[in-house]
Amino acid sequence: MGNGIERPLDLLNASKGKEVIIQLKNDKQFVGILKAFDIHINVVLDNTKEMINGEVKKSFGLTFLRGDTIIFISPSST
Amino acid sequence: MGNGIERPLDLLNASKGKEVIIQLKNDKQFVGILKAFDIHINVVLDNTKEMINGEVKKSFGLTFLRGDTIIFISPSST
Amino acid sequence: MGNGIERPLDLLNASKGKEVIIQLKNDKQFVGILKAFDIHINVVLDNTKEMINGEVKKSFGLTFLRGDTIIFISPSST
Amino acid sequence: MGNGIERPLDLLNASKGKEVIIQLKNDKQFVGILKAFDIHINVVLDNTKEMINGEVKKSFGLTFLRGDTIIFISPSST
Amino acid sequence: MGNGIERPLDLLNASKGKEVIIQLKNDKQFVGILKAFDIHINVVLDNTKEMINGEVKKSFGLTFLRGDTIIFISPSST
Amino acid sequence: MGNGIERPLDLLNASKGKEVIIQLKNDKQFVGILKAFDIHINVVLDNTKEMINGEVKKSFGLTFLRGDTIIFISPSST
Amino acid sequence: MGNGIERPLDLLNASKGKEVIIQLKNDKQFVGILKAFDIHINVVLDNTKEMINGEVKKSFGLTFLRGDTIIFISPSST
Repeated sequence: MGNGIERPLDLLNASKGKEVIIQLKNDKQFVGILKAFDIHINVVLDNTKEMINGEVKKSFGLTFLRGDTIIFISPSST
Repeated sequence: MGNGIERPLDLLNASKGKEVIIQLKNDKQFVGILKAFDIHINVVLDNTKEMINGEVKKSFGLTFLRGDTIIFISPSST
Repeated sequence: MGNGIERPLDLLNASKGKEVIIQLKNDKQFVGILKAFDIHINVVLDNTKEMINGEVKKSFGLTFLRGDTIIFISPSST
Repeated sequence: MGNGIERPLDLLNASKGKEVIIQLKNDKQFVGILKAFDIHINVVLDNTKEMINGEVKKSFGLTFLRGDTIIFISPSST
Repeated sequence: MGNGIERPLDLLNASKGKEVIIQLKNDKQFVGILKAFDIHINVVLDNTKEMINGEVKKSFGLTFLRGDTIIFISPSST
Repeated sequence: MGNGIERPLDLLNASKGKEVIIQLKNDKQFVGILKAFDIHINVVLDNTKEMINGEVKKSFGLTFLRGDTIIFISPSST
Repeated sequence: MGNGIERPLDLLNASKGKEVIIQLKNDKQFVGILKAFDIHINVVLDNTKEMINGEVKKSFGLTFLRGDTIIFISPSST
């Protein structure tokens, strides 16, 4: 999956439909299926789980995350 | 509802008229009916409830929320 | 009042001349008559009261509030 | 003075040459004669007093205040 | 010096070559001769002194200060 | 490698395919192979390690890091 | 070196190839040879030393520093 990544958003594009881990600035992590993103790094996850220190705290369905709260996004299996 | 979401704002558009949970940066949550939003993620909720740790703290009618205070928006039932 | 709100600023427009509650990021609330606003959500209130925990701390007449300090704006009676 | 305020900056324009109170994000207040402002809400005060909890801490003459540190601006007598 | 100030930057322009006090967001003050500024309020001082609570902590020669860290700028003698 | 660096992004361009250390604002460091970056300093790392005080805390594969959380980026061997 | 500085970036331009001190918002200082900068005040240093309270904590070679973390930049000898 690392091939063909010329620009940062290429990784997000290649991760659509796959599970990603998203680290927020407030120490929370969200895990879910990446449905959509835009140039502000606003994202939509499906089957979203909010995690703190590796434990599932809450489950959501579809969730819109505002880009300016995000530190990193990593596909779960790469 | 997860189908047809090409861009993050598509989820907000599909959630109009439905109940959403909005997490703010200051640890507060707002629950209400999504009436309107714009590209800054400014939103208007109706029948708004301010919640802290799952308890209703205050009730408002229509409320304008400034986008830059928002962490995530999730429809209540997805 | 909830009808006819297509965009978030429509609520602010419908609230002109009426009393609104404005929550700031520093835990203070301002209550006053909404006189004017712009796209940055800068607002002008009249008969302004600064409130902390529901108590009036100070009274001002006309007050200009800078938009980037605002969390939410809600008409007092909706 | 509340009449004729169509946009937030109209209040600042009407306050030129008059004493205003400016609340900053760091809990300090400045009181002085409003000499000038721009669309970023950068302002220049004259006869400036820096106040903390209602007490004058320092006096300055002309002072340039950067707009992004400002919470609100209110004319002293309205 | 207060005359002829139509816009906030006019004060900075009138202060070129003179000593100014600059208050930063991190509670530090810089005193020095204002050499240059731009619309972002980036400034260059000469004979710069870093002060904390009125005491000189360090001396620099020419110093570039980034505008977004600045709260206010005041000419030393006005 | 220091030659031919006319603009800051030239260093990032020269570091593509090499290991870099990235310091974030929240005291964490990421070490990995720089795959891509853009003008917002959004970056993609491969073989990513999250480090705190010099110890590897977690390993990721490909990771998208949002630019506004970054303090510095340094190639591991220069 | 103070002559001929019309705009703030002129000082950075005159400092290319020379040692500068850079103060960051997180209380750290970087000392190194200024190789490049841009209008966002992103900079590249060479022979970089990270300092806390005047002590060298770490040494880097070439380092890219993101502009929005910088408080001031001063040439070491002016």
